Amino acid sequence: MSPQLVALLSGPDQKGLVSKVSGWIFNNGGNIIHADQHRDAQAGVFFQRVEWAVKEGSDPRETAADFQAFGDSIGMKTKVAISGDKPKVAIFVSKFDHCFHDLILRWKSGEYPCEIALIVSNHQDLEGVSNTYGIPYHYIPVTKATKADAEAEQLALLKKEGIELVIMARYMQVLSAIFLDTFGKPVINIHHSFLPAFAGAKPYHQAHSRGVKLIGATAHYATPDLDQGPIIHQSVAHVTHRNSVEDLVRKGRNLEKLTLAQAVGWHLENRILVYENKTVVFD
Amino acid sequence: MSPQLVALLSGPDQKGLVSKVSGWIFNNGGNIIHADQHRDAQAGVFFQRVEWAVKEGSDPRETAADFQAFGDSIGMKTKVAISGDKPKVAIFVSKFDHCFHDLILRWKSGEYPCEIALIVSNHQDLEGVSNTYGIPYHYIPVTKATKADAEAEQLALLKKEGIELVIMARYMQVLSAIFLDTFGKPVINIHHSFLPAFAGAKPYHQAHSRGVKLIGATAHYATPDLDQGPIIHQSVAHVTHRNSVEDLVRKGRNLEKLTLAQAVGWHLENRILVYENKTVVFD
Amino acid sequence: MSPQLVALLSGPDQKGLVSKVSGWIFNNGGNIIHADQHRDAQAGVFFQRVEWAVKEGSDPRETAADFQAFGDSIGMKTKVAISGDKPKVAIFVSKFDHCFHDLILRWKSGEYPCEIALIVSNHQDLEGVSNTYGIPYHYIPVTKATKADAEAEQLALLKKEGIELVIMARYMQVLSAIFLDTFGKPVINIHHSFLPAFAGAKPYHQAHSRGVKLIGATAHYATPDLDQGPIIHQSVAHVTHRNSVEDLVRKGRNLEKLTLAQAVGWHLENRILVYENKTVVFD
Amino acid sequence: MSPQLVALLSGPDQKGLVSKVSGWIFNNGGNIIHADQHRDAQAGVFFQRVEWAVKEGSDPRETAADFQAFGDSIGMKTKVAISGDKPKVAIFVSKFDHCFHDLILRWKSGEYPCEIALIVSNHQDLEGVSNTYGIPYHYIPVTKATKADAEAEQLALLKKEGIELVIMARYMQVLSAIFLDTFGKPVINIHHSFLPAFAGAKPYHQAHSRGVKLIGATAHYATPDLDQGPIIHQSVAHVTHRNSVEDLVRKGRNLEKLTLAQAVGWHLENRILVYENKTVVFD
Repeated sequence: MSPQLVALLSGPDQKGLVSKVSGWIFNNGGNIIHADQHRDAQAGVFFQRVEWAVKEGSDPRETAADFQAFGDSIGMKTKVAISGDKPKVAIFVSKFDHCFHDLILRWKSGEYPCEIALIVSNHQDLEGVSNTYGIPYHYIPVTKATKADAEAEQLALLKKEGIELVIMARYMQVLSAIFLDTFGKPVINIHHSFLPAFAGAKPYHQAHSRGVKLIGATAHYATPDLDQGPIIHQSVAHVTHRNSVEDLVRKGRNLEKLTLAQAVGWHLENRILVYENKTVVFD
Repeated sequence: MSPQLVALLSGPDQKGLVSKVSGWIFNNGGNIIHADQHRDAQAGVFFQRVEWAVKEGSDPRETAADFQAFGDSIGMKTKVAISGDKPKVAIFVSKFDHCFHDLILRWKSGEYPCEIALIVSNHQDLEGVSNTYGIPYHYIPVTKATKADAEAEQLALLKKEGIELVIMARYMQVLSAIFLDTFGKPVINIHHSFLPAFAGAKPYHQAHSRGVKLIGATAHYATPDLDQGPIIHQSVAHVTHRNSVEDLVRKGRNLEKLTLAQAVGWHLENRILVYENKTVVFD
Repeated sequence: MSPQLVALLSGPDQKGLVSKVSGWIFNNGGNIIHADQHRDAQAGVFFQRVEWAVKEGSDPRETAADFQAFGDSIGMKTKVAISGDKPKVAIFVSKFDHCFHDLILRWKSGEYPCEIALIVSNHQDLEGVSNTYGIPYHYIPVTKATKADAEAEQLALLKKEGIELVIMARYMQVLSAIFLDTFGKPVINIHHSFLPAFAGAKPYHQAHSRGVKLIGATAHYATPDLDQGPIIHQSVAHVTHRNSVEDLVRKGRNLEKLTLAQAVGWHLENRILVYENKTVVFD
Repeated sequence: MSPQLVALLSGPDQKGLVSKVSGWIFNNGGNIIHADQHRDAQAGVFFQRVEWAVKEGSDPRETAADFQAFGDSIGMKTKVAISGDKPKVAIFVSKFDHCFHDLILRWKSGEYPCEIALIVSNHQDLEGVSNTYGIPYHYIPVTKATKADAEAEQLALLKKEGIELVIMARYMQVLSAIFLDTFGKPVINIHHSFLPAFAGAKPYHQAHSRGVKLIGATAHYATPDLDQGPIIHQSVAHVTHRNSVEDLVRKGRNLEKLTLAQAVGWHLENRILVYENKTVVFD
């Protein structure tokens, strides 16, 4: 079977984009396996995800570079990935370990096309189990006073290891605008969500006091604006008066695991495009 | 088969409440069919719903009165309903008619133990179809200047007809604190809900701009604090980038219909207790 | 704004299909608004749905005919619809009226791009309300002895009125293979579904006896093989030991309404392709 | 805080049961925290779950024995558990490890009031990680020829260790009627479920071929009748034509994990009563 490429394109809508892209692939001997388009009429932006088998015998890396040049030439922001390539991923975690285990076990079972290259934590709690998983663990404590230094250390590590994605698996520190900007690559985060929303501490307690009948979780790309980044995926679960705060927390953990796991999978399969603080997810 | 009673009790938690209530029923020849209890340990409040068949040959109305007195005597707020009794209900509606039709068709199909006695609307649009349904329609226009008078007219009507429940089926006027207080009986309302929440006008447009992946609806008891009353039921539906604002509105209508219909059903079956701005729903 | 076309294509997978189709549209001055592709690698079949604005000033009917010829020329089964065209639809119904009202009210609210041209029923129960809705009602009783004649009468009616789609809104008669074959156009049906499945009569009673925790509904295209046709959409609801058979039936009605309504919407928006007894739904 | 008891009672319906049970608890100085009743009118069976704090200073084990005797005296099948007691549990597993890890991690996070005392497997694959978890691993290979001996070995082990519950975490062997009968305690199993159902091998392939739009999982108590035991919990997920067989398998794994995890939790909290091949779940 021929190697495959996945391209994500976005840019100002113009006539003939589908035709140009599919024409290029056809003329270069490729065969489209999946293609999905979207057009935001209001914003005037066009999005495309196209997956194709390259011409037999050709070098996928070369074709990817050629396609990248082509994408640029038609004014589309273009990203090309080669199937089989495994980007390096870092997991940031604090003490809550449900998302942490879930991500690593999914990865070990072959669910994620990536390499989990390292763990970063502001606590030492998960060092032992990380060793068991065979993943390097970097304990970088963070206090208000040391935060800038800690982030510099994190950034150096990410750079040195060539990390392409950071997953905040219930990492209980806010990443600064400087960190996000310097890293310059995607950071996926998970937070709980409620109807109505609750500000401040102990949200599950607040939700319980308010008598909500649904709790939720939202996976999003981290931006300097806390929990306000582009939404990737959201899930909810029903709760009743029979549920204690502990039940809500437990149900919330289930939601956080599933929602983050799905968002990470879509990202790694190059299914997500971001624009205007929202996402197109070609699931 | 013997007539049945349903009682809802709530009050300060005390030892032996279940025993006292079930003992009273047993000693009066009744047979418990369903019973459900709940205890809010934090608030120190106890809740009970009990449904029983009265002693053969006895008068259910008399037994209900006796139980009411018993409930009072043990310091519990008590409400007793006789199975087969059909409380009178008023539907308030403006122009959006999806909840309106849905409620009436469910009622006509036998789903609701009540009598839909009248429609109140600030528009004339649904007068014709209300006549077809055979339900009296009261057109009471509301402007800022006439609101107080209009509410007085509504209240007089509700009183005259002995209405026990008002359902706001997308009635686009806020009922004043004076109205709610004077009516003194439950008013069920429905509103859309989003994660995150959006204030202000055109919420579906805002949700679409924000790129939410879920939309929701919340049924609640109306209080002077707009849309902040005790939550009865909540539902959500997934949305994607493929969905237009119109799709969101359409999905929202589905949610509003189902969520309001369920809340009304639970209320009419005497399954809901309210305390501290939240509900216990014995579904 | 230019008139729009929607085309559904399917056929043996071949290199360059996306390119050919989008190239044709581009070369004919059209602008693709949405496009979705799917390829069943196992079956070797390619599917496409493409929605485009025709060249300004051109006749959409002519462009549709041209595209139809083009689709044929590249060996793809092709169907083209002109946006704004409203196919004629017939609703078949017996006595259960929940899907019947739901479909008509959605249609009246503008949700469906079609004309509900007539009602066919083997009972007279819904004649009055059909008149209220302003839709011609055809009472065609069916007994074992008269079934062939009744179907002939139905077929004559559908032909005379130019019906493009039949919706079985809980029509409790099986349409014969001869009927389906002679009509030759799609028929959408709804049936309840359970985990595990139950054969025979009174399925809700069986499901209740078996203690299922989920009930479901499946919308599908009718085929001679009862309830075994291509699945369009499926939904489920949770049930508990607290639910009586009546509760299951009521929840089942909700599911039937929503599931059928969604399937009909997708069909009318030309989002469904059928092959090998299954569907591709470009939602 | 006083020690707590949980009792599950079931038996022929009779007048005054709630009164008798709550009266006993009251008279013995106990305080009911939660109580839930259910009555299957058709089967004439009454069910109760009651959770109470025993009289201050009294011995919960003694009170439990007294209540057991009381339950017997009123003709109810009675089971009493002391809060804080942790029954011993065995996990049976083959090679698929998603449910295995999920259960153990939930247990380690404090979600389950039990002791996972041992693992039984017909393969050696998970021995290493079981050691990491600190749980004894018993490799007992099973072939057609050795099945009887292997089950005897398993039974001896379960007896020796005082196991109260076996969880089949995707254990790919059928437990014989003799095994189930000799063990005499609950065995929880998980299986995938589809609408419609598929018999035979490779069910996900069959479901994919059939074009189903939903896949499901069912947790149940194992009986000699394969996958036909009392249903505890069921869940589903939507699938589309975009999903490959691998996607279905992956979604199926998520469902299996969550559904089994919930069923095990309810069982360990003494929330489940079984009768006539179905369950009452007091969630």
